Amino acid sequence: MSVVENSYKPSHALANVRGSAIRDLLKLTEKPDVLSLAGGLPATELIPAERISESAARISADPEALQYTVSAGVYSCREAVARYLGVDEPVGVLLTHGSQQALFLLAHALVNPGDLVVVDDPVYVGALQVFQSVRARVRALPITAAGLDVDALRELLEAGERPRIVHTVSNFHNPAGVTATAATRIELARLADRYGFIVVEDDPYGRLRFSVTDIEPIAAHGDRIVRLGSASKILAPALRVGWMSGPKEVIEMVELLRQGADLCGSTFSQLIVAELLDDSAWLDSHVDRVRSEYRLRATTLAGALRHELGDKVQFGEPEGGMFCWVRMPGIDTSRLLVDAVNAGVAFVPGTAFGVDADFSDCLRLSFSALAPDGLHEAVRRLAVAVKNDSK
Amino acid sequence: MSVVENSYKPSHALANVRGSAIRDLLKLTEKPDVLSLAGGLPATELIPAERISESAARISADPEALQYTVSAGVYSCREAVARYLGVDEPVGVLLTHGSQQALFLLAHALVNPGDLVVVDDPVYVGALQVFQSVRARVRALPITAAGLDVDALRELLEAGERPRIVHTVSNFHNPAGVTATAATRIELARLADRYGFIVVEDDPYGRLRFSVTDIEPIAAHGDRIVRLGSASKILAPALRVGWMSGPKEVIEMVELLRQGADLCGSTFSQLIVAELLDDSAWLDSHVDRVRSEYRLRATTLAGALRHELGDKVQFGEPEGGMFCWVRMPGIDTSRLLVDAVNAGVAFVPGTAFGVDADFSDCLRLSFSALAPDGLHEAVRRLAVAVKNDSK
Repeated sequence: MSVVENSYKPSHALANVRGSAIRDLLKLTEKPDVLSLAGGLPATELIPAERISESAARISADPEALQYTVSAGVYSCREAVARYLGVDEPVGVLLTHGSQQALFLLAHALVNPGDLVVVDDPVYVGALQVFQSVRARVRALPITAAGLDVDALRELLEAGERPRIVHTVSNFHNPAGVTATAATRIELARLADRYGFIVVEDDPYGRLRFSVTDIEPIAAHGDRIVRLGSASKILAPALRVGWMSGPKEVIEMVELLRQGADLCGSTFSQLIVAELLDDSAWLDSHVDRVRSEYRLRATTLAGALRHELGDKVQFGEPEGGMFCWVRMPGIDTSRLLVDAVNAGVAFVPGTAFGVDADFSDCLRLSFSALAPDGLHEAVRRLAVAVKNDSK
Repeated sequence: MSVVENSYKPSHALANVRGSAIRDLLKLTEKPDVLSLAGGLPATELIPAERISESAARISADPEALQYTVSAGVYSCREAVARYLGVDEPVGVLLTHGSQQALFLLAHALVNPGDLVVVDDPVYVGALQVFQSVRARVRALPITAAGLDVDALRELLEAGERPRIVHTVSNFHNPAGVTATAATRIELARLADRYGFIVVEDDPYGRLRFSVTDIEPIAAHGDRIVRLGSASKILAPALRVGWMSGPKEVIEMVELLRQGADLCGSTFSQLIVAELLDDSAWLDSHVDRVRSEYRLRATTLAGALRHELGDKVQFGEPEGGMFCWVRMPGIDTSRLLVDAVNAGVAFVPGTAFGVDADFSDCLRLSFSALAPDGLHEAVRRLAVAVKNDSK
């Protein structure tokens, strides 16, 4: 091997990471004539730009808001997040650059190469990438209609396996759409206590619930839970403010690691988020508007799928979040994608989310980014692609 | 060991990281009556808040500016940084959350546990933390008046050692204050080519040069250089926009790792930075103002040190940046710090920056954050502490 090749050789950590098929795909489907059901973007037109712009102008006029802050984040924003989550202690909250960073730092703080980490199957791809980058031994357990399969987890534990972390997306799963039931949550917390692992309750979508019924977080049922959240889906992704809440031992470990990772978050962004979270009258009405628009879009997508594709599709009605997970028995959705892009519509094929299970006849459709007309047209194009594929 | 303790056990990576004594110290010296020469903060009153506020208000009024962006950063900002650096290709530039993140991702992308990494002695503590977190074998080489000791590096290489990375702060070293000469830069680039390592040219302070004479970057002399820079010291830390420029192979590796690390930076902040970097008439006059104020502060600090402490102090006259590195022969500066804080002044003792060498009689003084009156008073207090210490 030449010296030149050697100097650009990736670390074992990086070599272990699978690129995000979704992000690679997004690059391919950025053609303006393709309607994309592929991305995970919140609706741009629902981002409260006017309100953020007003706060941003006022807050950034003070140069103190443009200085460095401490690694754990601006204290007033930690307080605001603690109030938002109903957590007693701001010291139990650490602010991150989106909740993806929370997951990354957490994994680096807790997991050694070869340690077992349990994830969902289908998996949130960003979680898989993180656990691959720490060279964890990843075991994926099925997502059932009740959330992560706790029976399968119990069997694994009873067989003697000892995961460091069990990661699950608890509300409106990405990509599977389902929400963990109260029973699943209670059992996860109980198993964590009994077997000494950390549950990472990844919850970016919890506020985007279409019904009024709320389910208590896993964190309500035990102490060994680190809950991740984000301002990205309720306010704006570009604020890059996420958070983790959990045991102070874990928070302190992550804080130390963060000094080296990027010193600190943005004082400015965190002050904006603090202001908007604390303005609860405005926030409630804003989130209500987002939820009702997403509910309309989800209903539109589901209706269009039934109308255009009938018994070719199987899916659960979305109850929140941004995604609908669809099974198309007998269809290879990776192959279908080629026809689909030709017909002017994009989605993410199920294989992108599979760890051990075979999701080659599944696809993830995002309903958040297109208005109802766009969703109707996108599904019509999908039906054309399916017809071509069946030929 | 109980299950509970086990679940909070840090990873080997984290256990290997030494906390930043500086950041811990900053917490202790936040008392309002202590004048701090300890921090690494740019002068708050010189942050162009009005200009940033105006841009922030206008840019964030467009919801597109509040969406996610790609992992490498907003293309128009990559273009602006490429122009700013005189780099031909925006694809050779990747935007990060401050240049600290660039260093962190670079280390994780390139370094395996046990790989050799060469750093400066005294070292930029954030670099040491990063290389500890990837469990590199760290070897520190002296910083001389000409920059990193390239003779010592050549000896190491000729003895058969093969570092993956040689990291150095090239301009106005933190903490040592010195700038690598042209000869040092040329030799570093030559050795990198010959022995196949990557030079990380960490350059956050390059624009803060008090004289007009510029020295070409190390990157001008070879291809195996990754250069790090930041908007933090010339615009505002809270924008959290840094960058790396270098070989596209390395940029692509870091881009992949960044998907998992935090998805992407802030579209909004990157658009602000693009606008301000491109407004070169405004930027030049702003940077001139910062430089001339820092020059005044550096001169004030140096004069006060000579006046108050005479032959008790040895230091090189600062030529840029934010720091003055002072030797006080016969004085244990860690012990001195206790007296100093009692006298109402804080600094960072040299031991915080030492890897192999003994800097127990050194201290780092930052001249950026205090106005001339504050600097005079701080040095008077330091002289009181020295007098008490000598008793």
